[in-house]
This record gives sequence, structure tokens and C-alpha cells, in this order.
Amino acid sequence: MSLIKIGVIGVGNMGSAHVELLDKGQIEGATLTAICSSNESRIEWVKKHTQGNVQIFRDVTSFFTQSGIDAVLIATPHYSHPDLAKEAFANGIHVLIEKPAGVYTKNVLEMNEAAKASNKVFAIMYNQRANPLYQKLRDLMQSGVLGEIKRINWIVTDTYRPQSYYDSSKWKATWKGEGGGVLLNQALHHLDILQWTTGHMPTRVLAASHFGKYHEIEVEDDVTAYVEYENGATGVFITSTGEAPGTNRFEIVGNCGKIVVENEEITFYQLTQPEREFNKSYKGGFGKPEWKEIHIPVKSENGNHAVIIQNWIDSIRNGTPLLSPGEDGVKALEIANAIYLSSWLNEEMELPVDPDRYFEKLQEKIDTSTFVKKHVSNTTLNVKGTH
Amino acid sequence: MSLIKIGVIGVGNMGSAHVELLDKGQIEGATLTAICSSNESRIEWVKKHTQGNVQIFRDVTSFFTQSGIDAVLIATPHYSHPDLAKEAFANGIHVLIEKPAGVYTKNVLEMNEAAKASNKVFAIMYNQRANPLYQKLRDLMQSGVLGEIKRINWIVTDTYRPQSYYDSSKWKATWKGEGGGVLLNQALHHLDILQWTTGHMPTRVLAASHFGKYHEIEVEDDVTAYVEYENGATGVFITSTGEAPGTNRFEIVGNCGKIVVENEEITFYQLTQPEREFNKSYKGGFGKPEWKEIHIPVKSENGNHAVIIQNWIDSIRNGTPLLSPGEDGVKALEIANAIYLSSWLNEEMELPVDPDRYFEKLQEKIDTSTFVKKHVSNTTLNVKGTH
Repeated sequence: MSLIKIGVIGVGNMGSAHVELLDKGQIEGATLTAICSSNESRIEWVKKHTQGNVQIFRDVTSFFTQSGIDAVLIATPHYSHPDLAKEAFANGIHVLIEKPAGVYTKNVLEMNEAAKASNKVFAIMYNQRANPLYQKLRDLMQSGVLGEIKRINWIVTDTYRPQSYYDSSKWKATWKGEGGGVLLNQALHHLDILQWTTGHMPTRVLAASHFGKYHEIEVEDDVTAYVEYENGATGVFITSTGEAPGTNRFEIVGNCGKIVVENEEITFYQLTQPEREFNKSYKGGFGKPEWKEIHIPVKSENGNHAVIIQNWIDSIRNGTPLLSPGEDGVKALEIANAIYLSSWLNEEMELPVDPDRYFEKLQEKIDTSTFVKKHVSNTTLNVKGTH
Repeated sequence: MSLIKIGVIGVGNMGSAHVELLDKGQIEGATLTAICSSNESRIEWVKKHTQGNVQIFRDVTSFFTQSGIDAVLIATPHYSHPDLAKEAFANGIHVLIEKPAGVYTKNVLEMNEAAKASNKVFAIMYNQRANPLYQKLRDLMQSGVLGEIKRINWIVTDTYRPQSYYDSSKWKATWKGEGGGVLLNQALHHLDILQWTTGHMPTRVLAASHFGKYHEIEVEDDVTAYVEYENGATGVFITSTGEAPGTNRFEIVGNCGKIVVENEEITFYQLTQPEREFNKSYKGGFGKPEWKEIHIPVKSENGNHAVIIQNWIDSIRNGTPLLSPGEDGVKALEIANAIYLSSWLNEEMELPVDPDRYFEKLQEKIDTSTFVKKHVSNTTLNVKGTH
């Protein structure tokens, strides 16, 4: 089969990394043939850092209609993902979008419809799904060893960012430019892993988010969300970009014990008798079921962008099942949208929140914004080593 | 100085343990001279298990006015603590109450006033304050090494209880008999340690409690509370009697790092530069302050009831400062009352909640209760090894 001709649109922090990967031939079966950017300095960077023969486009329509690409990697600012994906599908082009799928579910759901109608291969850069740590966790959960879930706590505050991160571009961490902060950028991966590994989406959310608490930004940099699941299980999701060194501790409690993912290790505390059985049968008043502590051998690997891109290309070429189907992008976003709405309205939310209602509230945030960034460095940051 | 003549009122789970301690002469400077109980089988137990000369009272007024005791240890069901303490103070008797100080702050505040007016030595059985683990943590926090606090998370779910615990008496885990569940019994210690070690009381609470979720009881056995502090710091307090093996992980995050108390060990992640300074000065976009991981040597010791009783006796005899002054009893109760009210009304609460409002709502729970216990074993449980 011939090489898949790839275009990359958006050559910022993430797009640049993808251009390098493709240009160095690290994705089998694919060749970088076009980029699209409106930023002249980034276009210069592409010219210097690629081996030639990469077509340069400044206009989106020309990029999609005249480049001859089979597939596009969309790495533009968040808001534009759904519209660009829809344009690609309309031109018969396979799509891999950077996360988040979008900023609000309204147009992400439209994008999913367009993807379905197009029959093209649609993936999203949830690269943490390629991390063996979370793959193993998902296998464990799917095996049913934990029994019915009771509680899911994830404290993920190892997502620190200093002010200079937010100052790297004018659109970063504004409602208008990015539509959110830590939830849409750092912790969106974790919201996806939360639902992907456990197989459960929360049904209710009660959240307290703090906006510009630790940084000169207008979006959230500190979030505590209480969630409930359909079976009555509860959970807490905590994230922040203002704490150091931070914590990453993911705890899942079920009828048959507890799984803790921390320090990139999985520990399974397996009860010798399910708790619900012990509760009924044990007559001693004080006492609890016995358990074994089992260390699950696994090697955590961060990054993995190349794995997701390769999987997408393999799916285009050979029908390999997608690790991270584009349609899944809406799930973490539904949780994030509910957390925002609950925080803004100080009310409990049922999931999914009404897409129109969320869109209106977000628009209100944009329209009433008075925030002005004091320092903008216009820097392209090296994302190596980040998630 | 002559021996302090001690009376114990209430000879249930805790009272029996205290009677044994005193009778075996394990408290220096004190002698058990009287008990008061309305339960004949417990009176028989006292007669069999003490060395003689212990006066037996069935009537409270006679116990306080005719026993000649200098000091009383109150180990009756929760509701009665404030009234009994007030009666003791009125008779010029020093008081050590079991926790909780009471069920609602209204009469606990009255008890505190009575204590103050009496000039007697008033203590509460917050025996976890005698645990070297929490004493060391408190010293650390008071030294200021952590800087301004940002977040305080405590997951304390190693508080498991099977149904037989709740079935041990008719009054247990009912609104009328006990006025609460895990918050007033198992986790009240932790609510006290939370405020005592950090030096901070929450100012706002938003909580979700679940009632009779894992047991046939009418009170709460599963709680998630979001809290905020005066400086804007946030926190989460999670407790349950329905999870095994459970977790006990207390995390305090500040400007200078993080302290984690878990597995009865203290780890201090000390930043080499305060985060707030790093945030402003670091220009690299990605990056975080460096830190050292410091293991704080300490040996955790549970139990410690004897330490609290001894400290109270020493305070009576020699003016030794109290580890756990009785007046402090209201603090954890203020947090607990706010968690209940927030859960019942599904509203955010400012602390302290209005004592009258709380009392009325609790009364409503009692008045509208339709709960009937199916199985009551009337057992006195052995509390050795519990907290």
C-alpha cells in the first residue's frame, strides 16, 4: 500500500513536535507532505526543520482542497478543532485531532456526526491511552476483579505550570482564546483515563473551581469536583497547576478491594471475601475482611504521541482498531463542561449538561471578560517530557 | 497530694475500658471509687472486674452528690455528655468526657460556659492527640516549614464497620440514639486532628453524605466534604465505614511543599524555593521548583486513652497543661454539624453554622424517623485496638 500523505495544521507547541516526528520518518507508512499555518515565524521554522518537499499553506481551504493529503493532524488552538475536522471530513480526509476535541460539546457532537457520515478514520490525541500503566489498569478493571465500584478518587496535582507558561501566547488561558485552563489542557487526559480505565462516566457533578487563583489568568487553575455514578458510587477529582511537587494518586475502591495507581505503580489490595458478604456474615462488631497486597508489574511510559499517530495510520492502512477513537473526545469534555457549569452556577449538575446551555454560559464568559494579559512572550514551548 | 477519687458514668464499650485501666492502677494519682450505670448486667460486670470498694450508683444525682468523687469520666451515649458535664461542674467535680463533646453545638457551647464558670479541669478524650504521629505533624506545621497552606486532603476510609457493630445496641446509628454515624464516631478524631495539627478551621463546607448506604442504619456511613479556609485554601475530607481495606492518607500542601501522612509515616516534600517565588521568576514555561523528600522519623501509637486520662489527672493535681482541653470538643463538632447541614440541605454552609438551626434540623430528623432496627444483639464490644 502506498504511503499515507499527511498534512499538519497548526505548528505551535504540539504541532511542531508532530512535524518533527513525521519528518524524521518515525511514523511507518506515512509521509509529511503539507503544513498549514498563519504564523510566518512558524512557517520559517518548518522550512528550516524539514527535509524539503513539504508544501506550505497559509489558507485553510487551499490546504484541504489542493494539498492532496490523505490525512490531517489538527494541532490548532482548541476552539477550531471541530470546524477544521468537519472541513477535512467534507474533503474526504482522515483526521487526528489534538485534545481537547473542542471547548464545548455542542460542536464536538456535530463533528462526531460529520465523522460518522464521512466513513473516514477519526482519532484523538489521548496519548495517555498508550501508556502501559493505564492499559494495565483498564485490563484489570475490565476483568472484574474489583467487583462493583464504590469510590473513585483521583488527586492529580502534578500538573504544575508557572506564569511563564501562560504568558507564552496571547490566547492561552483566556475564555476567548482557549475556553478553559487546567481542565481542558493538563487534566483532560486524566478525565479521559478516568472514564476509559473504569468504564464509567459520572452521572452527577458538584464542583468548586477557582479562576486565576495562582496565576494571572482568567480561567481555572484549581479544581475540586465531587462526582456520583449510576450505581451510587462516589468520587473526587482534584487538579491544579499551582501546587508543587504535586500528587498523582488514583484510587479505585470496589466490593472486592482497592486499586491504587501512584508513583507510576499499580497496587491491588484484594479482599479474600467481598466486603458486602463480610458485612452481612461477620458477627464480631469490630473487624474487616482480610486482604492481600498485590503489586502489578508494569512500566509506565509517558509521551506516546507517536504511538497514537502510528495507530491512526495503521487504522487507515490496515483497519487496525483505534486506541483512541475521535468520537471518544466528547466524553472527557462532557465531564469538564459539567465541572465548569457546576462551578459557575454553584449547583449540582446531571451529566451530560445541555450543550446549548453550556455554550451560552461560555459565550457569556467571553462577552463579559475584562481580563487583559500583562505579559505576552509569544514563545513556542518545547513540550518534550510533558504529557 | 492525696489520690484523686474518680467516678465513671457509663460502662459500655469505652467506659468498661476506662474502668479496667483505673482499677488496675494504671493511672497514677487516681483511684476508682464509684461508677454509675442503669444497666444491671454492666453493674454485674463492674462488680466482677474490679477489686472492691467501688461504689455503685444507679441514679445520676446521687452519683454526683453522694459519691464523694473529685473527678468524673463521662462515657455515656453521646447526647448526654453536655448535661452530665454541667451537673458535674455544678457539684464542683472535674470532668473528662468521651468524644463527641455532644451531638449538636448548642448544648456543647453551654457546657463550655459551665466549665469556664466552674474553674474545674475539663478535658475530652481526643486520644489521637496523644499519638506521636500527629504530635510531630503539629510541631512541623507550627514551625512554619510548609509556608502558607493551599490544600488539605484527608481520605480516611480505614474506619470500616460491619453490620454487627451497628447491631450491638438499639441506640447505635439512629438519629435519636446517637445523632450521627461515621462523622460522630470514627471520623470525629480525624476532624479534630485536622484542625489541631494544621491550626486551621474550615470557613466553608460543601458536603455530600450518604445515609444507610452500606448498612441497615439511618445515619451516614459515607461522607465527602469539600472545605475552604479563610486564606482561600481548599480541601477534601472523605470518610466511610463501608470500604475495605480502606485508606488513611492525610496530605497538606503549602507554599513550601507538601506533607503526606500515610501508613503511619510522615513524608515532607520540601521545595528548595517557595512555589509563589518560583512561579514569578521562572521563565521556561514548563518546569517546577526542585524539592527534597524528607522522611520524618516518628513511631505512631494508637490507643493512648491512658495518656489522656493521666494528663487530665496531672492537670488536676499539678496544673499540667491539657493535651485535649474539653472546650476544644466543639471544634470538630462544628465541622461535623456543618457537613450534616450541608448534606441535608444540599447547600454550601459557612462555619460555624447557627447552633439553633442545626438543633432544629436534627430534631426534625428524629421526629420524622421511621427507621426500625431489625436485629439488636445488645453486646458490649471490646474496643481494644480501635481508635
